[in-house]
Amino acid sequence: MENSFHDTICALSTVQGKGAIAVVRLSGPNAISVTSKIFRTAKGKPLEDTKSHSLRFGYIYKGDKLLDEVLVSILRAPNSYTGEDMAEISCHGSYYIQQELLMLLVSAGARMAKPGEFSQRSFLNGKMDLAQAEAVADLIASENEASHRIALRQMKGGFSGELASMRASLLEIVSLMELELDFSEEDVEFADRGHLNDLLVNVKEHIKTLISSFKLGNVIKNGIPVAIAGATNTGKSTLLNLLLKEERSIVSDIHGTTRDYIEGYMNLDGVGFRFIDTAGIRDTKETIEMIGIERSYEKIRSASIILLLLDAERPENFEQGISRLASVIERESQKVIVLLNKCDRPNQHLVESYLSEISAFCIKNQLDTATILPISAKANQGIETLRDDLLKNKESINDGSYSTLVSNVRHYEALKDSLIALNRVSEGLDDEIPTDLLAQDIREALFHLGEIVGEINTEEILGNIFSKFCIGK
Amino acid sequence: MENSFHDTICALSTVQGKGAIAVVRLSGPNAISVTSKIFRTAKGKPLEDTKSHSLRFGYIYKGDKLLDEVLVSILRAPNSYTGEDMAEISCHGSYYIQQELLMLLVSAGARMAKPGEFSQRSFLNGKMDLAQAEAVADLIASENEASHRIALRQMKGGFSGELASMRASLLEIVSLMELELDFSEEDVEFADRGHLNDLLVNVKEHIKTLISSFKLGNVIKNGIPVAIAGATNTGKSTLLNLLLKEERSIVSDIHGTTRDYIEGYMNLDGVGFRFIDTAGIRDTKETIEMIGIERSYEKIRSASIILLLLDAERPENFEQGISRLASVIERESQKVIVLLNKCDRPNQHLVESYLSEISAFCIKNQLDTATILPISAKANQGIETLRDDLLKNKESINDGSYSTLVSNVRHYEALKDSLIALNRVSEGLDDEIPTDLLAQDIREALFHLGEIVGEINTEEILGNIFSKFCIGK
Repeated sequence: MENSFHDTICALSTVQGKGAIAVVRLSGPNAISVTSKIFRTAKGKPLEDTKSHSLRFGYIYKGDKLLDEVLVSILRAPNSYTGEDMAEISCHGSYYIQQELLMLLVSAGARMAKPGEFSQRSFLNGKMDLAQAEAVADLIASENEASHRIALRQMKGGFSGELASMRASLLEIVSLMELELDFSEEDVEFADRGHLNDLLVNVKEHIKTLISSFKLGNVIKNGIPVAIAGATNTGKSTLLNLLLKEERSIVSDIHGTTRDYIEGYMNLDGVGFRFIDTAGIRDTKETIEMIGIERSYEKIRSASIILLLLDAERPENFEQGISRLASVIERESQKVIVLLNKCDRPNQHLVESYLSEISAFCIKNQLDTATILPISAKANQGIETLRDDLLKNKESINDGSYSTLVSNVRHYEALKDSLIALNRVSEGLDDEIPTDLLAQDIREALFHLGEIVGEINTEEILGNIFSKFCIGK
Repeated sequence: MENSFHDTICALSTVQGKGAIAVVRLSGPNAISVTSKIFRTAKGKPLEDTKSHSLRFGYIYKGDKLLDEVLVSILRAPNSYTGEDMAEISCHGSYYIQQELLMLLVSAGARMAKPGEFSQRSFLNGKMDLAQAEAVADLIASENEASHRIALRQMKGGFSGELASMRASLLEIVSLMELELDFSEEDVEFADRGHLNDLLVNVKEHIKTLISSFKLGNVIKNGIPVAIAGATNTGKSTLLNLLLKEERSIVSDIHGTTRDYIEGYMNLDGVGFRFIDTAGIRDTKETIEMIGIERSYEKIRSASIILLLLDAERPENFEQGISRLASVIERESQKVIVLLNKCDRPNQHLVESYLSEISAFCIKNQLDTATILPISAKANQGIETLRDDLLKNKESINDGSYSTLVSNVRHYEALKDSLIALNRVSEGLDDEIPTDLLAQDIREALFHLGEIVGEINTEEILGNIFSKFCIGK
């Protein structure tokens, strides 16, 4: 093991707060001896004698004062999460006990762990590669089945396996090339250019598939982005609150209440939807509001689904609302749902004539594919139909067209960099560029693929990755 | 064991939320076999073969789908918290995993535990008495050293031991009396009245001490109540926020913002202070505000310390503020600290003359013992001095005059009922009341003491006690 740590870290691994129990975790060469300093059992058996994977009931003492009754789990290197000796203290979940316990452990020789430091040690001790370690954080953050599945597959090494096979192919190519270079004086061509090209095309196709899976992977991880658009006072915030079933936005009768966009996350049938409540769009000279409107346009452009709200009490604004949206969206990739809100107020007859009016405006603005729904956010009418309509987008997520989904921006960037280098190799093969230059580009592609699993890493990259973890993992 | 449960319960035992790890706990005859249904190890070793107090690493499956990698702790009856077979599953702390895991366990035959049900089983299975079980909830809730100490002593059986010794004395008295009754025809007096009386006096003294410890015990458990009083707009909410260092009250410039009292808890040097921000007191005809003012008076009356705020910019109100407070408080038991707020605004000379004016008003209103401090809540001036002054009350808490502190209202009520019955016995002894009536009163006192440890209990009492616990304990 090239990395070995001399210090022992400790942290609260469960969520902070008042709970039935809390778990404080230690890892490092002195994990067991540090715990042993503050732990006593009824029979006085030393904790150091405890076998791996066993539990001991006993007492935590602060000097002579009893702090708590606890259960201590002992896991010995290398058979632990970090690959080091570990102790997990399961104590009563009071603030006071958690705090005191950590302070006692620090006085006994441990130090407070940085966020993600347990996983970082697991990686540096060779228990998992970097992509797997990152998947642990994703697994913890996952809120639905789809994102959980991506994270778990990555954690179990599925993605790493694919990368390994691509890297093996590239290594085969580069070693054949380098062999050729060694014998360059003799003008021997070890590497059959046709074979090289086949290998290269395969790897590039694989990388391209992974890159194109990112859009979907990202949507699954972060939710399908749904923008709620419309003029001021059409009930956007009320709708958002209704969909999220909580008071996320502030709802009031004053025009222009929602100055900035507000995001809310909803889990519908295992699919995440990320709602973006945009600032109401109207003519304004107020600077803050103008900034808000510009941001709304950006948010609308980046959404997969746009809910356009129209106010059934202001039919004179229908056309403007639809044409404004039509000028912003990309028809091929964005789905529009037009919601005629406040439909509980006018009579049914009027609502129907409004709906056909709206339909005509949509056609006029080339929004033929838009769905049009009458709703009342305030009276909670038509919301179930809207939910069903949103769920129709679920199929596009679960189509199974990718065996692996890339959901991590860092991986996505590394894959793109790797593809750029391999594209240079392809061009080079066509142009009969000298072999040593080709080999250099393949090495670069290997470098970028290696970055993903952490075979190539710098302190800075690692610090960046693990600092986003929660404490205690 | 008279109680034995046929069902197996499960619950999340750690705080709900997204964390590094979460622990799901099972207890009951099928705790291990239920877990075993959804758990697999790499080597396929059945969980049922696992020894008590050991850990197994493995995988949770939902049918064929992997849900998570987990560590399972096995604790076998009777050597577990509940005295039953228990399994503790330590999983990744994502919402999704926690939820799915509990659903899987329920499908596998467990049921969701009610709040406190693990502790209730521990009590019903004879692992701890009722006072000890209640102390577990107090221990979890304890936020400072003093309340932690009371709870821990009670959990370890210190209080129960005292009750046991008193009950033994009373049982001695009552059995002597009842023996006498059996032989009543023979006119034998087994029970020496002098001895009986000595025993009785001792028990009564002990109970009285416990009862009188409740005031202190309650203050330690819930914090020293500090009311922040004063006219509207004197800066009460700003002061509270400053003391609590967070935005607990809404601060604004509109008179009468704090309509209701707001509580905040501060831990100072191991002592809890419970702050009560009262509605500003002024002449008003608004009903809601009048209710608020009446409540303020109540809160002021129940506080141990009252911080009276006066506004250095409104010296014309000094006298009214002081005399109003003087009309409400009890001079012997309540400590008053008068704070001259907004002292950063007038010049130093003026501030000094204000302070001596205030001092004169205090003397006039028999508030000679009040401390007077110049502060500025907004400019954070004088707050350290105020904190030091508050801490002077710490000594009264840590005086060690009681070996046991009663901090539970239920115990306090039972002790009082028990004392009432014993007082009747004392009177009866003096009045030479028939022995059988005396014995009946002693039995009643025994009943009330028995209630505390749960020797006498009803479904209703138990339901009431354990429903206040957190889930998973």
